[in-house]
Amino acid sequence: MSTVNGVNKHKDRSALIPFSSRLKDGRALAQDVWSIFNALNLPPDCLNLGQGYMNFAPPKWVTESAEEALHTIAANHYSHPRGRLRLRQAIKDHYGPQFNRDLDIEKEILVTSGANEGMYSAWLAFLELGDEVILFEPFFDQYLASITFNGGKPVYVPLHPPSHDKQFSTSNEWTIDFDELRAAITPRTKMIIVNTPHNPVGKVFTREELEGIAALAEEFNLLIMSDEVYDCMVYDNKEHVRIATLPGMWDRTITVGSAGKSFSATGWRVGWLIGPQSLITPSLAASTRIVFCSNSPLQEAVAGGLEKAKNYNFFETQLKEYQDRRDVLIDTFKKLGIKYTHPEGSYFILIDISDIDIPDGYPFPESVLGRGLDFKACWFIAMEIGVSSIPVSEFYCEEHTHIGEVFARFAFCKDIDTLKAASERLQGLKKLFKKRE
Amino acid sequence: MSTVNGVNKHKDRSALIPFSSRLKDGRALAQDVWSIFNALNLPPDCLNLGQGYMNFAPPKWVTESAEEALHTIAANHYSHPRGRLRLRQAIKDHYGPQFNRDLDIEKEILVTSGANEGMYSAWLAFLELGDEVILFEPFFDQYLASITFNGGKPVYVPLHPPSHDKQFSTSNEWTIDFDELRAAITPRTKMIIVNTPHNPVGKVFTREELEGIAALAEEFNLLIMSDEVYDCMVYDNKEHVRIATLPGMWDRTITVGSAGKSFSATGWRVGWLIGPQSLITPSLAASTRIVFCSNSPLQEAVAGGLEKAKNYNFFETQLKEYQDRRDVLIDTFKKLGIKYTHPEGSYFILIDISDIDIPDGYPFPESVLGRGLDFKACWFIAMEIGVSSIPVSEFYCEEHTHIGEVFARFAFCKDIDTLKAASERLQGLKKLFKKRE
Repeated sequence: MSTVNGVNKHKDRSALIPFSSRLKDGRALAQDVWSIFNALNLPPDCLNLGQGYMNFAPPKWVTESAEEALHTIAANHYSHPRGRLRLRQAIKDHYGPQFNRDLDIEKEILVTSGANEGMYSAWLAFLELGDEVILFEPFFDQYLASITFNGGKPVYVPLHPPSHDKQFSTSNEWTIDFDELRAAITPRTKMIIVNTPHNPVGKVFTREELEGIAALAEEFNLLIMSDEVYDCMVYDNKEHVRIATLPGMWDRTITVGSAGKSFSATGWRVGWLIGPQSLITPSLAASTRIVFCSNSPLQEAVAGGLEKAKNYNFFETQLKEYQDRRDVLIDTFKKLGIKYTHPEGSYFILIDISDIDIPDGYPFPESVLGRGLDFKACWFIAMEIGVSSIPVSEFYCEEHTHIGEVFARFAFCKDIDTLKAASERLQGLKKLFKKRE
Repeated sequence: MSTVNGVNKHKDRSALIPFSSRLKDGRALAQDVWSIFNALNLPPDCLNLGQGYMNFAPPKWVTESAEEALHTIAANHYSHPRGRLRLRQAIKDHYGPQFNRDLDIEKEILVTSGANEGMYSAWLAFLELGDEVILFEPFFDQYLASITFNGGKPVYVPLHPPSHDKQFSTSNEWTIDFDELRAAITPRTKMIIVNTPHNPVGKVFTREELEGIAALAEEFNLLIMSDEVYDCMVYDNKEHVRIATLPGMWDRTITVGSAGKSFSATGWRVGWLIGPQSLITPSLAASTRIVFCSNSPLQEAVAGGLEKAKNYNFFETQLKEYQDRRDVLIDTFKKLGIKYTHPEGSYFILIDISDIDIPDGYPFPESVLGRGLDFKACWFIAMEIGVSSIPVSEFYCEEHTHIGEVFARFAFCKDIDTLKAASERLQGLKKLFKKRE
């Protein structure tokens, strides 16, 4: 066999180009829950309370700003990698007071291609190979591969679910054991991810909990990434505390926001990071190379949305609508006697599916067969009564899927008529659950 | 000093959170050429032939599809991470014949958040720490940090510029020395990046050159990333050969395309990768975690653009317009007797600035002072005659900036009136260049 430049000429000739070993981590190549519980695989008339996107459009007066932008020249071309000036100014004006800060639009705000790309940029910018990132479990499943792709090692700390005895519990009964959190910190810990309001639990972290996390972050010099994309959905007059506003925490916190969630436009891919220059500048350097910049016309739309929101009393009205939507589902589960978690934030309700009564030999597809009870339950419910939901074990690491597999997540970011129709269909759950004594 | 969990409690308490060492490579934190030669730093009436974006809008009949999308519900929400079905179908219909293939829209096309994010995804998906990536120099500067961020090691192979003696040379006189290319291949070589038509040289790689590259890729089992974002701008009836169409190359080539370039919409951030399933699936896994999906309304717009292009004879007309634009600048430099490279593709012209006559003590800003002759020349020209351009040493690695620093890059993706006005101002170059004997 001949060699050239020390390379064996022949050994790989017919081989496929191997992909990076990093794809072997973080379930990157596994079939994810979203493609299994996809409209394409479910009955055509199934009501989709699975995926967390709205079945209604963004407000017309927000979309109008996109149309205006499309009619210009500049707003069809590259934006500054930091984001468009008008949008950064609108973010400053709208969010500055919530941070009690006069935000610097040149240094403390970074517009990103969705919250997702913003978080990815921060992980790229701050993780060193082997750095540990603490996630509260359950966690939004996208975090996992994004961390491992950037050399990070996820470390899991449970949110302890409330006792299984009660029918009704609130999302805030899912609690942190601070001894466990402290014990999870090692010399390689770089970051704690906070997600408040929380997906999928609906938990709004309390001031006391955030103070506890903050104290540990200070003690061990940790970075906090605070994913607050559901910050517009905090119910029951509950206080949404931003951990960045706690004493000493501004300098070590990146707060993540999302226009998709705030303006019912999940397909616009406009999000942002807010934080000190020392955290935003490296994130900008990362984002500049990943996407160069975010799309311009929809940045203009979001700027218009934030500018005009007050005129329309938008966020207040939207919050009331979401609370009404939530209450349709809560009432349904309550009357059915099904155990559920009352969410104080976000747009998800968990129900306990451990009593589901699946007939032997029920015809599940391959993709569901090897998975936990929750995968089977969600599939079974979708097929039998035509309402889809998402199995919660996907939001747990491999070793802990057994904790998550007693829950199904129903999204209520749907118009009220759809939720009422779903409520009627959900009456059928009575037949699907084992009768309790 | 107390320790907890083996962590020194106090050592880092007041320290900034350190950013990742990966930002130290690839000039990630350096001030880039785009922010130095930014409209904000230049005289307000300066004609911007620096940055490569259009000073005109996308066609109205393309923008209309974006407006239609904004008026729906679904096209304001998440797209499939692969891209919207309609766009993938349109890409298949438009590009399939150019690849002589019946492209599989479920496996062989990936829509990305700009070509940039597409390439980033492929690097993330395929580079192993220490893998070498061969770049022809000069190279589009964004490649550099994107490769190093993903653990890759750039290896540079020069495109040799033509002799300095002639006033006129064509972009295709920039040539590859195939012995040098072969010598650059090591056991760690993973990938060669081809950029045709080429930024900044304007070179359209010939079939023979691509066959030479292909033979080496086959011999050493290398992946080819072929950045063909300027595929609509190939002049003088020159043939644009896609390396993926050469025998055996489909299986090892990712071809990169850009709606921003094709439809004068650089701010829409819609691009795509085309390739075999074995290369697209890992790239999809990467892209899904980086951005989840690309923005929906502008994907619909691009789909509409590709669907309707034939009715409007769009690409043929646009090509003619670009060729006319190019010729305004070519005529200008020719008549001025300034040495330039006649581009056969893309929308850039290089001129040789080595004869520039900069007065001693000319007041350059800090950002330009430490840089090569080309940075000074571009600044000087912009200040003295009001036409901005981009110094080409930025497209070379540190060690080779001396090769690039004799060139300035002028972009002609501007309307014809702007180019004619620029042409008038460029008459002033006569005074700024040393008289040759």
